[in-house]
Amino acid sequence: MEVKGVTAVDLYSLVSSNEPEYKNLLKELDVVFMQGWIRTNRDNGSIGFIALNDGTCFKNVQLVYDNTVENHDVLSHLNTGAAISFFGKLVLTPEAKQPFEIRVMEFNVEGNVDSDYPLQKKAHSLEFLRDIAHLRPRANTFNAVFRVRNTLAMAIHEYFQNEGFMYVHTPLITSNDAEGAGSTFNVTTNDKDPNSFFGKPVSLTVSGQLHVEAFALAFRDVYTFGPTFRAEHSNTKRHASEFWMIEPELAFADLEDDMECIEGCLKHCIHKVLHECVDEIEFFNQRIDPTLKERLHAVVHSEFKRMTYTEAIEELKKAVASGVKFENPNIVWGMDLQSEHERYITEKVVKGPVFVTDYPKELKAFYMRANDDGKTVAACDLLVPTVGELVGGSQREERYDLLKERMEQSGCLKGLEWYLDLRRFGGCKHAGFGIGFDRLIMYCTGIENIRDCQPFPRTSDPIKY
Amino acid sequence: MEVKGVTAVDLYSLVSSNEPEYKNLLKELDVVFMQGWIRTNRDNGSIGFIALNDGTCFKNVQLVYDNTVENHDVLSHLNTGAAISFFGKLVLTPEAKQPFEIRVMEFNVEGNVDSDYPLQKKAHSLEFLRDIAHLRPRANTFNAVFRVRNTLAMAIHEYFQNEGFMYVHTPLITSNDAEGAGSTFNVTTNDKDPNSFFGKPVSLTVSGQLHVEAFALAFRDVYTFGPTFRAEHSNTKRHASEFWMIEPELAFADLEDDMECIEGCLKHCIHKVLHECVDEIEFFNQRIDPTLKERLHAVVHSEFKRMTYTEAIEELKKAVASGVKFENPNIVWGMDLQSEHERYITEKVVKGPVFVTDYPKELKAFYMRANDDGKTVAACDLLVPTVGELVGGSQREERYDLLKERMEQSGCLKGLEWYLDLRRFGGCKHAGFGIGFDRLIMYCTGIENIRDCQPFPRTSDPIKY
Repeated sequence: MEVKGVTAVDLYSLVSSNEPEYKNLLKELDVVFMQGWIRTNRDNGSIGFIALNDGTCFKNVQLVYDNTVENHDVLSHLNTGAAISFFGKLVLTPEAKQPFEIRVMEFNVEGNVDSDYPLQKKAHSLEFLRDIAHLRPRANTFNAVFRVRNTLAMAIHEYFQNEGFMYVHTPLITSNDAEGAGSTFNVTTNDKDPNSFFGKPVSLTVSGQLHVEAFALAFRDVYTFGPTFRAEHSNTKRHASEFWMIEPELAFADLEDDMECIEGCLKHCIHKVLHECVDEIEFFNQRIDPTLKERLHAVVHSEFKRMTYTEAIEELKKAVASGVKFENPNIVWGMDLQSEHERYITEKVVKGPVFVTDYPKELKAFYMRANDDGKTVAACDLLVPTVGELVGGSQREERYDLLKERMEQSGCLKGLEWYLDLRRFGGCKHAGFGIGFDRLIMYCTGIENIRDCQPFPRTSDPIKY
Repeated sequence: MEVKGVTAVDLYSLVSSNEPEYKNLLKELDVVFMQGWIRTNRDNGSIGFIALNDGTCFKNVQLVYDNTVENHDVLSHLNTGAAISFFGKLVLTPEAKQPFEIRVMEFNVEGNVDSDYPLQKKAHSLEFLRDIAHLRPRANTFNAVFRVRNTLAMAIHEYFQNEGFMYVHTPLITSNDAEGAGSTFNVTTNDKDPNSFFGKPVSLTVSGQLHVEAFALAFRDVYTFGPTFRAEHSNTKRHASEFWMIEPELAFADLEDDMECIEGCLKHCIHKVLHECVDEIEFFNQRIDPTLKERLHAVVHSEFKRMTYTEAIEELKKAVASGVKFENPNIVWGMDLQSEHERYITEKVVKGPVFVTDYPKELKAFYMRANDDGKTVAACDLLVPTVGELVGGSQREERYDLLKERMEQSGCLKGLEWYLDLRRFGGCKHAGFGIGFDRLIMYCTGIENIRDCQPFPRTSDPIKY
């Protein structure tokens, strides 16, 4: 007889459900077969307890064994990290901390652990764990982070698919560059001329936006969700060299449509994390950031406000006049807002999420639509408490002559003639935005370093994997 | 009053639905507001017809206008490709070819087309369209291809999420290499030492498998779905330099579990395309490959067979003896099966999808599990009619000593000590596979060139975008 194993996530659903069908299923489960990894194992000679994680949910399962189990001595000496499979009797324990336990009847050691296993029972620092990226998914914090990452990725797809957006895979190797010649990684081969493979020098993309605009002008609403790259030597907690970006593009849409989409998307994602990652968010709230739950709930239930850049500058000037201390207290129209300024606006002035709109054109990219004032562009940055900027978007310049002039001024027309041509061939008003996916994870978990949100972080640190 | 527009996909759903609720909704729609792009426009002076595509579905919408419309002359002279918005009266036409039409009341030209617009009414060759990748999504074939691409991408996520797999973003820039030092792209910077950024030479990944194995040993069932790269100068219809791969990895699983997962995944994906892309598949069946529908239905309803490599060799020898002509007729145990051999096995011998298993170890990668015969490894290739190999998988070598020996022999241990370590720290039997996503699209559409399945193809051709 082949025994189909059960998983922790299924057992927890069964036990916590009130569905009659589930209750019946549970009654039929007597002996179960499971596999997983030992988190802790303590034995007092007559009775032993194992906290087992089988990878299917954040929670552990409690195993109980006594010395009647064959090879009891082997079991009682298994260390943290060992992989086992076992048959056991499922026992409901409604009075105890965990709703059920499993009494081990028979077990097999699937994989033992050598004594130099670096993940011992004690808590490890995030810095220590960063050095063992191949093992840290087994630590509670990373178990939780990568589950939230999975849930958020699916929330993104779910939101856009439900709204009728089409997913587009924009290219990673490119001869174009959305932001002008920034810090890009070169892609070469070992051929005699390392740039000969594609007929010209190419680099890793910094954004899929320009390419995805071509698709918006055929499919109306589209989005990319893929890796992007920056070769900046920014050794900060928030900068990575490789990170995933979500870049939606909406045809027949203006800046207001864009902001509505951003708000809808973020609320959907955060709502989903709050409801599907209950244990994980509870863990982060207890161990990482005690304001997390309150902050996330507040975003879901708040109405995102709007404020122009010019209004924001006025607010900051007022703040300085009334004695607020900024590291950069020299507030002038035309300046780039620093993180301290953004946080002041969202935390002190608005006390919630706020779109700052209509930035001076000199601060923004060539493709953003010029406003009638001749000084600003139809851009929006979403600022949220504790992190500042979370999303940036804009209406795109759809007017051929104006775009051409901006492209010539910024020296990026050569090689991007095709992008300009989109304005001659059935162009229309359109808008889009970009969400840094790894920063969204930081925001939803309270984790402060982007290195702790990526499976194998790629920053300006040396690469080990 | 702000008018919310309707989309083609919504109108077609409403009109074709028998739900009472939808029927009522439809009755309330009298005047609609829409936007889209003109595909064709013909006018006989008193009445004009526009086939409009608004990007939300494969089908066009028929617009009708007469000379009472303001600026009728402008409308009647609009060319293929122009973007318009309009108010119109929705009229059901159950007797006509299309179930409804829209009588234009008022329109606005959102974006005109210059006279050198390359997409005219006539049909264009795929080769011609390949040169205008920023415009070809507006051609019927690519409209259909990229919709199927979107549907398949979601089908992949849906299948694995429903089965409890966790999505993992494995890194693209890496100092490791799953297949040994193959043809990889180098990643460099403009620093004095181009390799100094990450402290060592790095390249673009050829596979996320090794990294995702580390996650399988923490989360049980996981998958990557992301871009991978090959710097091969293969100027064929099936090779790309940048392509998306799906790489699932199952802990506590053997080769049989692996094959069951492959079969379940493919059937789910094809079923979903057949049901959600009805118009697109019909189009491909009529224009591209008249066997497509039959072939896809056959896969969904067939049971995937199993045959060992050794049995396959015997079948091929029999075939040669009975007079079958192969370009390579020299069939010997140990040879790599060519496409012609694979197709003979799946098309003539099995007459359906078949897993060929247990290949000579010399033909396969170092990480595949050695069988007890000492000659073969627990690998499987899924062969399907008309294309041959569609998926490749294997059980991984979980035994430390055997893996270490293979890694030393193949000279890939240096830098991959962490991978070997996964076998010392709670390892277990596990298995996985890889699906080339772009090839899956080729298979599901009948499109023969991988260049026509990627939004902006990356092959050994010169890069334009």
